[in-house]
Amino acid sequence: MSSTFGEKIKISIFGESHGEGIGVVIDGLPAGERIDMDAVLEQMARRAPGRDKTATPRKESDLPKILSGMLGDTLTGAPLCAVIENTNTRSQDYGNLMTKPRPGHSDYTAFVKYKGSNDVRGGGHFSGRLTAPLVFAGAVCRQILAEKGIEIAAHIKSIGSVSDKPFDPVFIAPELIKRLNSSSFALIDESVEEKMRDEVEAARTELDSVGGTVECAVTGLPAGLGEPMFDGVEGAIAKAVFGVPAVKGIEFGAGFELAKMRGSQSNDPFRFKDGKVVTETNNCGGILGGITDGMPLIFRAAIKPTPSIAREQKTVDLQSGENTVLTVKGRHDPCIVPRAVPVIEAVTAIAVINLL
Amino acid sequence: MSSTFGEKIKISIFGESHGEGIGVVIDGLPAGERIDMDAVLEQMARRAPGRDKTATPRKESDLPKILSGMLGDTLTGAPLCAVIENTNTRSQDYGNLMTKPRPGHSDYTAFVKYKGSNDVRGGGHFSGRLTAPLVFAGAVCRQILAEKGIEIAAHIKSIGSVSDKPFDPVFIAPELIKRLNSSSFALIDESVEEKMRDEVEAARTELDSVGGTVECAVTGLPAGLGEPMFDGVEGAIAKAVFGVPAVKGIEFGAGFELAKMRGSQSNDPFRFKDGKVVTETNNCGGILGGITDGMPLIFRAAIKPTPSIAREQKTVDLQSGENTVLTVKGRHDPCIVPRAVPVIEAVTAIAVINLL
Amino acid sequence: MSSTFGEKIKISIFGESHGEGIGVVIDGLPAGERIDMDAVLEQMARRAPGRDKTATPRKESDLPKILSGMLGDTLTGAPLCAVIENTNTRSQDYGNLMTKPRPGHSDYTAFVKYKGSNDVRGGGHFSGRLTAPLVFAGAVCRQILAEKGIEIAAHIKSIGSVSDKPFDPVFIAPELIKRLNSSSFALIDESVEEKMRDEVEAARTELDSVGGTVECAVTGLPAGLGEPMFDGVEGAIAKAVFGVPAVKGIEFGAGFELAKMRGSQSNDPFRFKDGKVVTETNNCGGILGGITDGMPLIFRAAIKPTPSIAREQKTVDLQSGENTVLTVKGRHDPCIVPRAVPVIEAVTAIAVINLL
Amino acid sequence: MSSTFGEKIKISIFGESHGEGIGVVIDGLPAGERIDMDAVLEQMARRAPGRDKTATPRKESDLPKILSGMLGDTLTGAPLCAVIENTNTRSQDYGNLMTKPRPGHSDYTAFVKYKGSNDVRGGGHFSGRLTAPLVFAGAVCRQILAEKGIEIAAHIKSIGSVSDKPFDPVFIAPELIKRLNSSSFALIDESVEEKMRDEVEAARTELDSVGGTVECAVTGLPAGLGEPMFDGVEGAIAKAVFGVPAVKGIEFGAGFELAKMRGSQSNDPFRFKDGKVVTETNNCGGILGGITDGMPLIFRAAIKPTPSIAREQKTVDLQSGENTVLTVKGRHDPCIVPRAVPVIEAVTAIAVINLL
Repeated sequence: MSSTFGEKIKISIFGESHGEGIGVVIDGLPAGERIDMDAVLEQMARRAPGRDKTATPRKESDLPKILSGMLGDTLTGAPLCAVIENTNTRSQDYGNLMTKPRPGHSDYTAFVKYKGSNDVRGGGHFSGRLTAPLVFAGAVCRQILAEKGIEIAAHIKSIGSVSDKPFDPVFIAPELIKRLNSSSFALIDESVEEKMRDEVEAARTELDSVGGTVECAVTGLPAGLGEPMFDGVEGAIAKAVFGVPAVKGIEFGAGFELAKMRGSQSNDPFRFKDGKVVTETNNCGGILGGITDGMPLIFRAAIKPTPSIAREQKTVDLQSGENTVLTVKGRHDPCIVPRAVPVIEAVTAIAVINLL
Repeated sequence: MSSTFGEKIKISIFGESHGEGIGVVIDGLPAGERIDMDAVLEQMARRAPGRDKTATPRKESDLPKILSGMLGDTLTGAPLCAVIENTNTRSQDYGNLMTKPRPGHSDYTAFVKYKGSNDVRGGGHFSGRLTAPLVFAGAVCRQILAEKGIEIAAHIKSIGSVSDKPFDPVFIAPELIKRLNSSSFALIDESVEEKMRDEVEAARTELDSVGGTVECAVTGLPAGLGEPMFDGVEGAIAKAVFGVPAVKGIEFGAGFELAKMRGSQSNDPFRFKDGKVVTETNNCGGILGGITDGMPLIFRAAIKPTPSIAREQKTVDLQSGENTVLTVKGRHDPCIVPRAVPVIEAVTAIAVINLL
Repeated sequence: MSSTFGEKIKISIFGESHGEGIGVVIDGLPAGERIDMDAVLEQMARRAPGRDKTATPRKESDLPKILSGMLGDTLTGAPLCAVIENTNTRSQDYGNLMTKPRPGHSDYTAFVKYKGSNDVRGGGHFSGRLTAPLVFAGAVCRQILAEKGIEIAAHIKSIGSVSDKPFDPVFIAPELIKRLNSSSFALIDESVEEKMRDEVEAARTELDSVGGTVECAVTGLPAGLGEPMFDGVEGAIAKAVFGVPAVKGIEFGAGFELAKMRGSQSNDPFRFKDGKVVTETNNCGGILGGITDGMPLIFRAAIKPTPSIAREQKTVDLQSGENTVLTVKGRHDPCIVPRAVPVIEAVTAIAVINLL
Repeated sequence: MSSTFGEKIKISIFGESHGEGIGVVIDGLPAGERIDMDAVLEQMARRAPGRDKTATPRKESDLPKILSGMLGDTLTGAPLCAVIENTNTRSQDYGNLMTKPRPGHSDYTAFVKYKGSNDVRGGGHFSGRLTAPLVFAGAVCRQILAEKGIEIAAHIKSIGSVSDKPFDPVFIAPELIKRLNSSSFALIDESVEEKMRDEVEAARTELDSVGGTVECAVTGLPAGLGEPMFDGVEGAIAKAVFGVPAVKGIEFGAGFELAKMRGSQSNDPFRFKDGKVVTETNNCGGILGGITDGMPLIFRAAIKPTPSIAREQKTVDLQSGENTVLTVKGRHDPCIVPRAVPVIEAVTAIAVINLL
């Protein structure tokens, strides 16, 4: 198992949904940086379930305890370890998972990989709860990036059939970034919120769930970051973003739309603006040849519907070797897309800080 | 710069389009394996320009010379180094690139990153020509994978507005794999070939280029490969595939379509078939929780239109600091999608062999 | 800062001497293995100060708390995180370290590297206390190695001018390994213990400290482990062993004595024994060309005297910019060599498990 | 097999003694640096056999051919690949190695590891000849280090029982570095040369070989390089130096002598000199807590006697399963220590450039 990321700033996530605690070790942070822990907690609150109307009812006290790496509010240079204790777990809800894997979940693949020894309660190490230390790590990294003028913002691009406006790919206003960064239901065009919530409620009512997309932008990146070929920026960010549970696709700039374009449409013309080289359009998403060009870095991630639904589903009984059905009890979060927004921002921060 | 990939089987690509030679070092291959070099050359021919009607007129003699790592036809266990000499280069065609970056190319980002010292001729290290050693490396890896029953096949999923049929996600016939693997214009439904070639010709006639998508499948993978979170299979393959020039998006299984689905649609029901756990559908693309589930691994990559077009384009003059225009001379390949097929297969093989 | 080791089994150490806690995350352990936690604690006790007559008076309660990765006594495959809380710290003892670096300590280099932001109390992340989670990690790895027949044992080869007998390089009895593994003052020839303790007491009486060497053997290794050149076994073990504070040298087999030998003396003759290829001598320490040959792997590490001594020493005042003197108060451990034995065993286990 | 080193500047060595060619790919070099190729060749000549009286009679034309990464004399930023063709090989000399492993060589361990498929001619990938591309890579790195004021020099510290003077650990004169760097029999006290050569000649006359030690110093390093624990400077350099064939030990500063010292002797007192913090002695070899302190970095490596000797030696016949004897024909180099000097310098350069 490898739950680590990065060569310069190494992130190592640990924990299982129903174990003693979950957390993260961040190795390589610069000594002397001051961290605003309230701002970190604010980001963690955006991810926590139960804060927004669309979220799961399970309450979490996600208060991280810093074991090492900080003295007061300042990074010491030693690995930063934060631990979040697990409480309020109801493991009896998951009693039959060992034998009947939930469709769309990692139950079956984890069973094969870990030979049945993995902690199945609450999804174990595969639990969405593990994104809490990810957001912690990302929030710390984002403060260091912000000092260099690098900001990261994401929004709900779509839920089901309802879409938000996309980012303007050549200019993203600081006020928009600020607004999105403090929202628990982040939208560029807030007028679509009601329709989106209706989509989620419809799924909930029908004991179902619904997917969506998240669009993310990074501003303030200098030109010249990244390496050609396998260490290009697209690959680095993709590796981080696919670390988020439920992500099944990623596209940069115009992405899959580029496949239908002509070169005369997709090539972004260069021009000078205020003495700096910019592009008039940004179909490449701020990356050419794997290297940043100084324009906003923009990508979209596809989030599959939460596999936990209250309907009866077809599955197998691994013990008896027979086909069977399964109804997962408990109340489920019908749409994780709003809460995926701060997680996508966090892993993007972790990827970007490793590019500098 | 980092043109290396892999921890178990390390691939290190070197070379520049107009330098003395290009090549690859592959470190970690198993000693004693016999390599069918004719089969390797056959794969390299699929990628080489000028073999198919849609390709660039530049002729390449892509014959790799093995410097080390093989004794006769058998791997020795030492790093395998293959070198391809560069010939037939017309560097005078590129005389003005240093000052006028081509839109959509890496000229500008490479200029910033390498402070103007990079070899700009033919795109230097960013040249599509560097995919030749990639295909060599992939072809060697594929032979080792084939012995374990793992096959890789890709096809042109679309060019511009013309689409091929997708893979049947739950069963891919060995004969289809074999046919695709030996085709220089790989299609599942060969009846769309004419329309696709028309699309390419139309772009060529209009001094333009056109993009497309490639769909790739891996069969025979055991369940249980990959790791959760950052070392999941999606991330590993994405990192490899984004190493291919012009790829701007990747999606696994139903990919971005999942964003519009309900959980009751997207969850793949489990059932027993011949005593083995399978899924009835394959919306997850053979990967759950970052780990293979034993079904075919399926993904699609978006390929942007070749940025080299013969039309006049807006750009900047980096020396004079003025906006200007540029017309790139020479004949250009209006569509690299057919030749991207064996390259996508190759990097997938490199990623997969590192998962075993 | 990088306090991580390994590619297969990744060890990430965190903590500072006087922070909230210290600990380790171990990523990649095999699911389903049972861990005898009592045996782990026994190894940790061997390292803990205050258990043996030569040790520092500071008492530690080194009881590790498992946050994740185990269910009952069985590894789940998720990262194993163990935390040891810090208690009984007297940070006022170290009030003047920030400005007056202790000779032989990392105070000055840490000050330069971390720009004065590092936690200087008790040596911070450089504290010998950080070897507690190392021993925890090593003890877990050793149990997994033992199931494969691989045993690790070390002993005090020398303290000051008093030497123990060396290992018989071609055969190390299981009973000897067992005895050494449970000793807090591990010696092959126990008759030298009194002389060694006298050496330590003499140093203590004179407010001084004394160095020594540790010899370590690994038995049961199959031939063929390791890679040529940079990933040879010597390099892998050296990287781990130099991770132990105070180690300043390492030699394999006959080591520096080889420099005085003739080839006819140093070459280890091969012969068959019970159908297996063995060597008659073991001057190479079980490693030829960076690869194990199936004989016991043997090395010695040089441990410098503990830099903390109660004598007045010359140093600088980093604030005033003047030369000055320093007397470090408190009682000091005059010799860490006995306690270094289980730590050397632990890092060797961590290195070896990554070679398999 | 892994013949790669480094994360920032990745070195990948390939080749076998009697294959088509050997070489190196260096990934990550800074674009725009000018390389003095004559100075590189001068370093390679120091390593080449047959240039000095003590060397093997085999002549090599070690002229490297640059395949990529340079345009004229300037680094382009793309991976630098240099190839040296193999010529003048007499593979018939080694006809019986497959079945009768030479004592002290990697023949047996390579046979086990590579299942008998490795290229045994001339030692294959384990050949000392592979140090030629190492010296090439090191020489390029040294030029980049020299621009930052960092110099590396090594000398023959001992051969058999004859010793050179050690470096003055607190000051190493630039003239001495220059002289050592251009010598093929590098000594601080040149008056011992005759005695050392006598030692070598005595070994040669007796159909034997003799070992020695190399001492290496790095000057001009800033304080603060390296990381605590596993990525300390000692470990990084040890990993590189153990990549050199025949090295069996390494010690930093006073090294194994520290084991006999008291803390009051070994602790290096700090003082200010010209406004800079220095140490009065340098028993720590310029490294405290794994981090450079700004003093010269000093280490010694133990080189075992060349295992190739013309005497009859006991070995096994792997085919017949019987004990037997072996006499390796051909003329042998009785002492590789003089030629190991530039190789040790080279790998040190490769390690140091990765620390910056």
